[in-house]
Amino acid sequence: MKEKLTIIKVGGKIVEEESTLSQLLADFSAIEGYKLLVHGGGRSATRLASQLGIESKMVNGRRITDAETLKVVTMVYGGLVNKNIVAGLQAKGVNAIGLTGADMNVIRSVKRPVKDVDYGFVGDVEKVNAEFLATLIRQGIVPVMAPLTHDGKGSMLNTNADTIAGETAKALASLFDVTLVYCFEKKGVLRDENDDDSVIPVITPVEFKEFVAQGIIQGGMIPKLENSFSAIDAGVSQVVITLASAIHKEGGTVIKK
Amino acid sequence: MKEKLTIIKVGGKIVEEESTLSQLLADFSAIEGYKLLVHGGGRSATRLASQLGIESKMVNGRRITDAETLKVVTMVYGGLVNKNIVAGLQAKGVNAIGLTGADMNVIRSVKRPVKDVDYGFVGDVEKVNAEFLATLIRQGIVPVMAPLTHDGKGSMLNTNADTIAGETAKALASLFDVTLVYCFEKKGVLRDENDDDSVIPVITPVEFKEFVAQGIIQGGMIPKLENSFSAIDAGVSQVVITLASAIHKEGGTVIKK
Repeated sequence: MKEKLTIIKVGGKIVEEESTLSQLLADFSAIEGYKLLVHGGGRSATRLASQLGIESKMVNGRRITDAETLKVVTMVYGGLVNKNIVAGLQAKGVNAIGLTGADMNVIRSVKRPVKDVDYGFVGDVEKVNAEFLATLIRQGIVPVMAPLTHDGKGSMLNTNADTIAGETAKALASLFDVTLVYCFEKKGVLRDENDDDSVIPVITPVEFKEFVAQGIIQGGMIPKLENSFSAIDAGVSQVVITLASAIHKEGGTVIKK
Repeated sequence: MKEKLTIIKVGGKIVEEESTLSQLLADFSAIEGYKLLVHGGGRSATRLASQLGIESKMVNGRRITDAETLKVVTMVYGGLVNKNIVAGLQAKGVNAIGLTGADMNVIRSVKRPVKDVDYGFVGDVEKVNAEFLATLIRQGIVPVMAPLTHDGKGSMLNTNADTIAGETAKALASLFDVTLVYCFEKKGVLRDENDDDSVIPVITPVEFKEFVAQGIIQGGMIPKLENSFSAIDAGVSQVVITLASAIHKEGGTVIKK
């Protein structure tokens, strides 16, 4: 039987503020067994860019990453945010290691081809090196992954944190019994968006189609759930959408086959 | 017999400019066997601090590191400079991993006590975790170490790159046959500072005392050599002071017992 591995993805909002970060570190530390954290950091990147007089341009929620912006996100995601989390986890006795995709070549990407939009130095994941990650994890080391990859030709690439979490979960699914947890600003996927307690506890592919047809699930939640089912199809045991403060507890919405 | 390990320390100047970085990556890649790189990045930190309106204060060549400056050096050393080197080495087939002292707890420091000067968030190295580094190195992974450590209580600390190189070399000396190479702007320690070719090929402790007494070795070179002898005393096989462009060749000044 494969050993359990919990992969947590948290957005920038949670890791960029002292109080929410501190709570996250406590909650993440409380997770038993093998674990891995993927973080964002967009707000800090936007703030630093603005201080440096670099305009942040977003298209479909994705950052257009020119050469100067790539420097900003490399500094903020790979340096400031990542190392703050790592140092914070070390203080709690969690033997964390900060990684970008370039480190040990753990995630190689290809620069996104220009179609309607030129996203610049943005990477689409090509390969996750699961073996190296697994070797670290089995030594009791906890990878903390920044939303950055590399192209294998010497350039870093800005890469969506949800994608990094999903692709890493898929790649590790052959080696571990993987639970992928997407932290969300609500308790889970809601049946009624005005009722925070109307969490749908489990969604299967059949139910997902019904919820979409009925208009219960809509907007940005549709691609999030499609990604979740894609992870399940690739062997991830379960995907959970829940509050960051609930990552070490039961609850949230569980996406299952 | 212990296997050979070469530890190279390069200053910021070399890794912060495209052309010299590119040459360094080629030279470093050409080093055979186990290797480890320690880098600086002070010029980029000063530039970013200045762009953010943060004044860089130096005392005895060391940066006074207040909370805002700590953020700057964490971004620049741990993010920008470190990841550029790692991505560049990956492009050359060197399986590099970027590390600060917080990552895998490889270097824990203590915040420098305030005496005459309050250096702020500056760390004096307490412990290098040689075992974790050795495990990586023996897997063929090449650590690229930024001049940052952590205090074990959740804070990063700014730490001199020469010190990181020296302490890492000492800690690894029980596990490997370590050569420590300090890159220098001259071909080595010069007998005549006006003659770039007057390199002293070998210096022993007895010769060092004589050179100092004669005024041949003076100024900043004295602590550099004292540190080198301290590394030798702690089991490092040899320390070499040489040009960055000569790290994969013979030459420079060799400091020996």
